[in-house]
Amino acid sequence: MSARRTGVADRPIGVFDSGVGGLTVLRALQARLPHERFVYLGDTARLPYGTKSAATVVRYALQAADALVGRGVKALVVACNTASAVALPAMTERYGGLPLVGVVEPGADAALAATRSGCIAVIGTEATVRGGAYQRAITARRPGARVRAAACQLFVALAEEGWTDGPIARHAAERYLRPLLQARGVLPRADTLVLGCTHFPMLRAVIREVAGAGVVIVDSAATTAAAVHRLLRERGLLARAGRPARPGGSGRAAALQLLATDGAARFAAVGGRFLGRPIQPREVELIDL
Amino acid sequence: MSARRTGVADRPIGVFDSGVGGLTVLRALQARLPHERFVYLGDTARLPYGTKSAATVVRYALQAADALVGRGVKALVVACNTASAVALPAMTERYGGLPLVGVVEPGADAALAATRSGCIAVIGTEATVRGGAYQRAITARRPGARVRAAACQLFVALAEEGWTDGPIARHAAERYLRPLLQARGVLPRADTLVLGCTHFPMLRAVIREVAGAGVVIVDSAATTAAAVHRLLRERGLLARAGRPARPGGSGRAAALQLLATDGAARFAAVGGRFLGRPIQPREVELIDL
Repeated sequence: MSARRTGVADRPIGVFDSGVGGLTVLRALQARLPHERFVYLGDTARLPYGTKSAATVVRYALQAADALVGRGVKALVVACNTASAVALPAMTERYGGLPLVGVVEPGADAALAATRSGCIAVIGTEATVRGGAYQRAITARRPGARVRAAACQLFVALAEEGWTDGPIARHAAERYLRPLLQARGVLPRADTLVLGCTHFPMLRAVIREVAGAGVVIVDSAATTAAAVHRLLRERGLLARAGRPARPGGSGRAAALQLLATDGAARFAAVGGRFLGRPIQPREVELIDL
Repeated sequence: MSARRTGVADRPIGVFDSGVGGLTVLRALQARLPHERFVYLGDTARLPYGTKSAATVVRYALQAADALVGRGVKALVVACNTASAVALPAMTERYGGLPLVGVVEPGADAALAATRSGCIAVIGTEATVRGGAYQRAITARRPGARVRAAACQLFVALAEEGWTDGPIARHAAERYLRPLLQARGVLPRADTLVLGCTHFPMLRAVIREVAGAGVVIVDSAATTAAAVHRLLRERGLLARAGRPARPGGSGRAAALQLLATDGAARFAAVGGRFLGRPIQPREVELIDL
């Protein structure tokens, strides 16, 4: 019996992030997969993951994934770069059969498709950069590729504060990116810059301005959405177009369930900027992990 | 039998913060009370508290306090503004007899001692400002006082990144402080500025520059240390000068125990800037809460 006939295909897709940043990935998923329902979980009580140890991130990520799996999701998207970078092996081990997509590998694929010089720069949180997952994913695919990485912690605070343009964002981008992108000795300038944190697309304009026209900016949201689409299609798990809305829901509301571990008001206020549409606090269900 | 004769006075003082910011308060305590031993607990796995709901902060603060009380501390200093602002009543209820000092009330006292116009500005995290604890503490003491408050989230990231001077810190200070400090209608300019977050003393120079010479800057670390000193003296709980070091320890190492819930390496690297002396990762004991 196919997955579609057993009803698995009609289940929602679970999307997990440490907070609201993953809503940029959810937005790309909704655009790519308009017939799917989504359950998004932001672990806002324990964010940020980006400054925590790998062991703690793994523990938190498994708890969040358990909550989504408990809600019967048909696939799991780890929209958090830090969790993708350090917790994906543990999650694969725990949920062997479940389609599981992180943001690091699609980002690495997109970077390698974009680079001509083979020299790629990656920016992310402290934990993502320290963990080296992008570096490993890129050099595993193309051993000759050169990867430089830098942690840009202030970008997270700037995105959450909504200070995404103006002199503060520009000075911060210059301070982080100039040393990262310049030529070093015989090594050429990086020609591709991976935004290895879901907050960073909010600062895309200022990053573009500082990086200059010669650098391709890779944002893993769209490539992650494409990877999810491909995986669901391969497994016969794509939702049917025009499926009936769930009882009690209609339209966009039925198509998206928002869960957070703390602060519905803040989730709505800050998250709306990331999702690209206003979120009402009553749309956000608080859960314990 | 006096507390001193039963040995209670020789116990350490517990200091609690959500992370490393409270090390600025610990530093003031060590300067004021050089004969005391301290146990400092930074709840680094769950920081920041400043963006979390009051209910969550109360739960986390009680768990942290339990851990310190379990280590036999003779007094508890809540060095975290957010926890002081929202969790002190719950902590007072749970640990009735224990000397308990937060940073908000000493800060309010210091602000009222400094102001001439009665118009006081307070800056802190989102949770501290939203909770209104400084506003209440100041107007409870002097009902005619005017209090304006603003959340300055980016200051936290700047302090942790070590970007405490230069154009980014100055632009951020201008953006936060100019609207807060200017005269509004018939109300005069605030003449006193309370640094209502333990991270903010790291940005004192740039805050001073933007606020101008006419504004007194109040940092609650020193006034909190004075309040702890006074309370211990009243209860006969001051440690004796020249008491013997604990077995197995000597000098400054025996006088301070550092606990964290995550990331000893980051605690040492970032915390050293706040404590004003280098911290070795092996000095930091990891505990679970």
